[in-house]
Amino acid sequence: MTKQDTKQALLQAGTQIIREKGFNHTGLQEILLTTGVPKGSFYHYFTSKEDFGLQIIEQEAQEHERVLAVYLQDERFSPLQRLRHYFEAKCEFFASHHCREGCLLGNLGQELGDQHEIFRSKLAEVFARWRQQVADCLQHAQDYGEIPPHLDPAALAEFCVNSWEGALLQMKVSKSLQPVQTFMTILFDTVLQRG
Amino acid sequence: MTKQDTKQALLQAGTQIIREKGFNHTGLQEILLTTGVPKGSFYHYFTSKEDFGLQIIEQEAQEHERVLAVYLQDERFSPLQRLRHYFEAKCEFFASHHCREGCLLGNLGQELGDQHEIFRSKLAEVFARWRQQVADCLQHAQDYGEIPPHLDPAALAEFCVNSWEGALLQMKVSKSLQPVQTFMTILFDTVLQRG
Repeated sequence: MTKQDTKQALLQAGTQIIREKGFNHTGLQEILLTTGVPKGSFYHYFTSKEDFGLQIIEQEAQEHERVLAVYLQDERFSPLQRLRHYFEAKCEFFASHHCREGCLLGNLGQELGDQHEIFRSKLAEVFARWRQQVADCLQHAQDYGEIPPHLDPAALAEFCVNSWEGALLQMKVSKSLQPVQTFMTILFDTVLQRG
Repeated sequence: MTKQDTKQALLQAGTQIIREKGFNHTGLQEILLTTGVPKGSFYHYFTSKEDFGLQIIEQEAQEHERVLAVYLQDERFSPLQRLRHYFEAKCEFFASHHCREGCLLGNLGQELGDQHEIFRSKLAEVFARWRQQVADCLQHAQDYGEIPPHLDPAALAEFCVNSWEGALLQMKVSKSLQPVQTFMTILFDTVLQRG
């Protein structure tokens, strides 16, 4: 493997294990065993487990932003339809994943929000980027006449992202898609209604 | 201390430590040290750390239901005002707690929803009880003409409880009350609007 491949293998294995077990519960040893990378080599790429975790968050956030942008820039559809297609795709993903794991960023926020200021601050930053993407879409939807002019796209985006995270939490607890389906129905049929 | 006092002291200390650190990260030793209860005595009250965790969940859920019922049965106010007062009181609580800890039940759902079937199932049960209390209130609000007749109180209650949990997660990440304030504004001014 090239150096870049090794680093990427470590990040990928770490992302998957932390998604399943949480950050505190994930041992470096398990990541090294999964990837076959020696400990000394790990510290060539990452200064600490914390540094590793922060790089995982940034990579996950960038990948999420890239996928979201694909949906939100699909000009075949109206702004609100684009947002709906994104959530529909996420619902299909979770259906095929048996309602497990939920959102890595939400999981880490729940686990580390009070414990670790550097993680908390990093997660706050990536959630703000996510909200901004949704707010831009909702601004377009408003310009397009799809949502009423008196609603604030930034506040709606905040509500939308947070309510989605809460629906994913309940999906994980109930092992059912109903919470995310109810989220979709009420978001699109009531909150973002033309009025 | 009486036997009941000892058991209660263990449950209270456990609730607080698990609220801060999560279940996996909480050691029995810390609970014993905090309460001054010997290990043998702990196993007199609880068959295992799992049994202890399940009793903490049930006690927390009952206490939450009791407080929620005080608000929802306050007949000086309309059904929707009662629900609003409950969320306002929770917001004040979190303001005084520096946006820390969030909801114990939500935290445990996030942490254990994929890891531990017995906890997952217990949490699903207590969340269902919570949703039912809110659904009953929203049914009264509908009978009272406060929310439109075409909306489904059970689905609204589900959306409301889950979105609240998502707002609490983001409050913890942002260390700001803004997510819960935005939740309140959009819930009461848009979702539950008379239409």
